[in-house]
Amino acid sequence: MCELLAMSANVPTDIVFSFTGLAQRGGVTGPHVDGWGITFYEGKGSRTFKDACPSSESHIAKMLQSYPIKSEVVISHIRQANRGCVSLENTHPFTRELWGRYWTYAHNGQLSEYDDKFIVSRFQAVGDTDSELAFCWILENVVNKFGEHEPDDVRSVFQYIASLADEIRELGVFNMILSDGDHVMSYCSNHLCYITRKAPFGQAKLIDTDVVIDFDKETTTNDIVTVIATRPLTHNEQWHILDAGDWELFCKGERVVYL
Amino acid sequence: MCELLAMSANVPTDIVFSFTGLAQRGGVTGPHVDGWGITFYEGKGSRTFKDACPSSESHIAKMLQSYPIKSEVVISHIRQANRGCVSLENTHPFTRELWGRYWTYAHNGQLSEYDDKFIVSRFQAVGDTDSELAFCWILENVVNKFGEHEPDDVRSVFQYIASLADEIRELGVFNMILSDGDHVMSYCSNHLCYITRKAPFGQAKLIDTDVVIDFDKETTTNDIVTVIATRPLTHNEQWHILDAGDWELFCKGERVVYL
Repeated sequence: MCELLAMSANVPTDIVFSFTGLAQRGGVTGPHVDGWGITFYEGKGSRTFKDACPSSESHIAKMLQSYPIKSEVVISHIRQANRGCVSLENTHPFTRELWGRYWTYAHNGQLSEYDDKFIVSRFQAVGDTDSELAFCWILENVVNKFGEHEPDDVRSVFQYIASLADEIRELGVFNMILSDGDHVMSYCSNHLCYITRKAPFGQAKLIDTDVVIDFDKETTTNDIVTVIATRPLTHNEQWHILDAGDWELFCKGERVVYL
Repeated sequence: MCELLAMSANVPTDIVFSFTGLAQRGGVTGPHVDGWGITFYEGKGSRTFKDACPSSESHIAKMLQSYPIKSEVVISHIRQANRGCVSLENTHPFTRELWGRYWTYAHNGQLSEYDDKFIVSRFQAVGDTDSELAFCWILENVVNKFGEHEPDDVRSVFQYIASLADEIRELGVFNMILSDGDHVMSYCSNHLCYITRKAPFGQAKLIDTDVVIDFDKETTTNDIVTVIATRPLTHNEQWHILDAGDWELFCKGERVVYL
């Protein structure tokens, strides 16, 4: 199993506090020592930092904690390998371009008997994980359904992806975070939760290391920030726990509600 | 104009020496202050570090110089914007997946009147540079010609890409470096050169900053390393200067010769 972390915010926000907690699970408070990665969107652009070594020992992870990058959308993952060896090409998040956007994805869980399911040609896996192949299969189906141009109602794309995730969940555990740069989608198989922070902000205390933050000092009253994780990262705050098959879509920090 | 840097080596090699020279051109010895990026391949995987701020001031560039990453293939670029604003999505190198490989590309030069030429649908630009659009057009044509699976003779793909580059060069200046993870291709419009270093190794002195390296102490006698750049990075070594329309293909540090 692995740990997932995502963020959606209405202003460029640094995720150092949450990433500090997550990075501890990569070798200190958790067994996830097989690499980690984090993608920051800045406008339509994105950059991904990856390392095949444990996040608690990584030079790059340390740099990110001392040189915070402000972003409106973040997708992150620390890995405990089950399918696929420990190598850079098997390190999440995975990114592909579709419709002139970078789509970024990370998966927690393990799938079985997927060879006959995940038939792809246009989007092919570079590594040998079930996770990357599932991502390629999702995008392949999205193109087959919607064609070469983004539909006007992009939410219909995420609804369709949720139906694909329902199919994937029949093959095993499939907790997923996915972004097109504007939206962050979370799909729960058995472990996924989120919290939306907005004014009035309070203090939060990390579970995995002895760090407390006073969001009131770090934010303005207009800030809205949602953090998604496989397990709650803080004590003393109420996280929303998703049930099996639940999914949520966030944009600029807020839940997108389907009417 | 921009600066390009690429490396092909037969053993994982750090490029700190050459990158140190190039990074100086991003704000100190050169006017290229509009961002920089570098892609390292490690096996089939790759990771890209990018910054929209000048390389001579970048925290990430400093980290890469103090925490060298060893790689067999590197593609790097520092940018002086001509087409497209200064932003992360316009920062080279650009990467797309094709045939289960990450293809990475960077361009030096400026193109004109390309709107009718670069018609794409499958590979779309995320930013608004001529460079990224040309890359998308190249890949679109490669898929149209060779289909969804890599041909047995991959060199025929690079020969075809060279013919596409000939067409692009009619629209302006097109110096290019491109890799599929195994090969590094260089295409010259007006500024591109390379050097292949192998035993017996000697000393090299950077042009852009006061650094000397004794490769004999850094290498083994079996190492073969080719470095490609828009302009020579060192005094006291003989760089091969490419002519307009020339292109070269390297694999594991050595020129691929077409018989």
